[in-house]
Amino acid sequence: MDANYQIADTSGIITPALVVFREFLDDNIRHMIEIAGDASRLRPHCKTHKTAEVVRLQAAQGITKQKCATFAEAEMVAEAGCRDVCLAYNLVGPNIARAVAFRQKYPDVTLSVTADHEIPIAALGHAMTEAGTTIEVLLDVDTGQHRTGVTCCERAERLYQLIAETDGLIPGGFHVYDGHQHQQSHEERKAAIDVEWAKVIELRDKLIAAGLPVPRIVAGGTGSFPVYATKEDPTIELSPGTCVFNDAGYSAAFPDLKFPPATGVLTRVISRPTDNRITLDLGYKAIASDPPAGKRCTFPALPDAVAVLQNEEHLVLETNRAGDFQPGDELLAIPTHICPTSAMHKQIVVVSGGKVADHWDIVARDRQLTI
Amino acid sequence: MDANYQIADTSGIITPALVVFREFLDDNIRHMIEIAGDASRLRPHCKTHKTAEVVRLQAAQGITKQKCATFAEAEMVAEAGCRDVCLAYNLVGPNIARAVAFRQKYPDVTLSVTADHEIPIAALGHAMTEAGTTIEVLLDVDTGQHRTGVTCCERAERLYQLIAETDGLIPGGFHVYDGHQHQQSHEERKAAIDVEWAKVIELRDKLIAAGLPVPRIVAGGTGSFPVYATKEDPTIELSPGTCVFNDAGYSAAFPDLKFPPATGVLTRVISRPTDNRITLDLGYKAIASDPPAGKRCTFPALPDAVAVLQNEEHLVLETNRAGDFQPGDELLAIPTHICPTSAMHKQIVVVSGGKVADHWDIVARDRQLTI
Repeated sequence: MDANYQIADTSGIITPALVVFREFLDDNIRHMIEIAGDASRLRPHCKTHKTAEVVRLQAAQGITKQKCATFAEAEMVAEAGCRDVCLAYNLVGPNIARAVAFRQKYPDVTLSVTADHEIPIAALGHAMTEAGTTIEVLLDVDTGQHRTGVTCCERAERLYQLIAETDGLIPGGFHVYDGHQHQQSHEERKAAIDVEWAKVIELRDKLIAAGLPVPRIVAGGTGSFPVYATKEDPTIELSPGTCVFNDAGYSAAFPDLKFPPATGVLTRVISRPTDNRITLDLGYKAIASDPPAGKRCTFPALPDAVAVLQNEEHLVLETNRAGDFQPGDELLAIPTHICPTSAMHKQIVVVSGGKVADHWDIVARDRQLTI
Repeated sequence: MDANYQIADTSGIITPALVVFREFLDDNIRHMIEIAGDASRLRPHCKTHKTAEVVRLQAAQGITKQKCATFAEAEMVAEAGCRDVCLAYNLVGPNIARAVAFRQKYPDVTLSVTADHEIPIAALGHAMTEAGTTIEVLLDVDTGQHRTGVTCCERAERLYQLIAETDGLIPGGFHVYDGHQHQQSHEERKAAIDVEWAKVIELRDKLIAAGLPVPRIVAGGTGSFPVYATKEDPTIELSPGTCVFNDAGYSAAFPDLKFPPATGVLTRVISRPTDNRITLDLGYKAIASDPPAGKRCTFPALPDAVAVLQNEEHLVLETNRAGDFQPGDELLAIPTHICPTSAMHKQIVVVSGGKVADHWDIVARDRQLTI
């Protein structure tokens, strides 16, 4: 295996196995804080790891706020000791009642949620008032991705005013996610982000002039948070996700970001069906398949391999080194996209100092814990 | 929602939710047996559902044999009462010891496994002999997919002979999987399968002439099992997987197969970010992403929708009917590929007579149960 990713004794590891290399993980958390300037500016997204131990490692370095997308993640984060949770996912249907249940189960945890439409705003306000409690609501602002949110215009102003006027709701600021800013050049990315940011600030200032509080702007993902980090605005909360583990995809997409992949999937050769093929136990039930077929992972120890077929439990590689491998031999795959890969595994094997040191449950892979 | 997929009260269903429609499921099991001619000819692959209740429903219709790919699936199937389990996945590494553990935990269950190489054959024989037990081994025969297995030639004969000569192993026959036979025309598919089948039979007859038993040939998937079903060979065990639930992908790929999709993913609109877009809580953490982006599901009630963006928790559709939808409105998505979709969910909501009737745990989504 690659010198950077050593595991002394793999004989007890059932493959395919998600593995985290502790030293890289610690470095990535440190580097994230370095870019932010201060741990207090960060609200990382836990969807990448879904793991209480990672929340606690971040807390040990001073990160006290977390962002999430599901109630399972929110509950995992609260159970891990975090007292400030932002559920950046517009609530509809049974999630309105789950927000009440969360407030009741964790009364000492600040839960903020996002909204972008009158109907859920009214439903959430009604539910909170009925329950005799309140919740902070961030306006979901669309800065060009057109995935969720409202663009910075009169409708955004009216909705924020509505949040402020609705019993049970407290206006908490904005949520700004810009996953569409995928310019490889940092300068081009920064320029595109700044055009949108100017509109966000204009909206903010209008609302403040109208007497409304805008206490925070939760902004950015892994690709954009270094841009927001350079702005001297004390209300910005930076919310990168992927970089805590990082992956081969973000390493290639954003060359300015220096986060080595901290996780891999250990896999074994199960067959050598032809002279130039080896087949691994690494199907798309164990590694994310949102990247195109053939581009779902890389092998540090076998960079020339070409993935020619993947099914649920198999990955077939073509390589002129196939003859070097026997069934049972191991390889480490670096996933192209780690976030949906983590969600496929019940546990992560923790390697420290080149040895298996621990196992962490990926608690929030389930969509419902108790709430 | 589509008239075929009605759910009377969805208010308590947290979305995204995997849903099975019981009547379609029962029909699909019945139709699978109809094609096979008799339930005793079937050894369906449980990877599609990973659910004990489906194994029991199949048993109630006379299916007593199951095929699987992981030890978690094997254990789930054994716990569901099945006494004849084929683990059609070549064992290496810790899976050798797990085979021993399985034999010890379930001594009354016949466990057969596959092999295609001398090294694991020796390791498995050694482990079984040490444990004072035996296991049936099927030779994994490659009929052109080149994913695993050996082609029908001298090497195949030698390996089968080796299995027969290895203490602790019992030659159990062949495993023949041909997922590459994706001809849309049944006649073309049949012609291609028959060319390969002739080689399998030639190999079988040679081995029998040499005095070796070849008691069974586990053959085919959903696309090919109807072809094997027409052959009057009592040693054939038909092993379709997908058709028990079926999906939009196989319905389109194999028009000769009449299995309606029995499962869907219930989803809700969470945003309407532009005039022609609606955004659903249906990311690729909840629906399989091995089909290309934009083609991962269909909506019976919104056939004109075009999927323009999908992330981990979001699916953005463009439709000129966007104005008809409000946040909280529901849609049912039919997955293009159900097998890796099932593996993403902890539970399946069971709908019968148009009402939520039960919840089944997708037990074998975890890769390890107790063994």
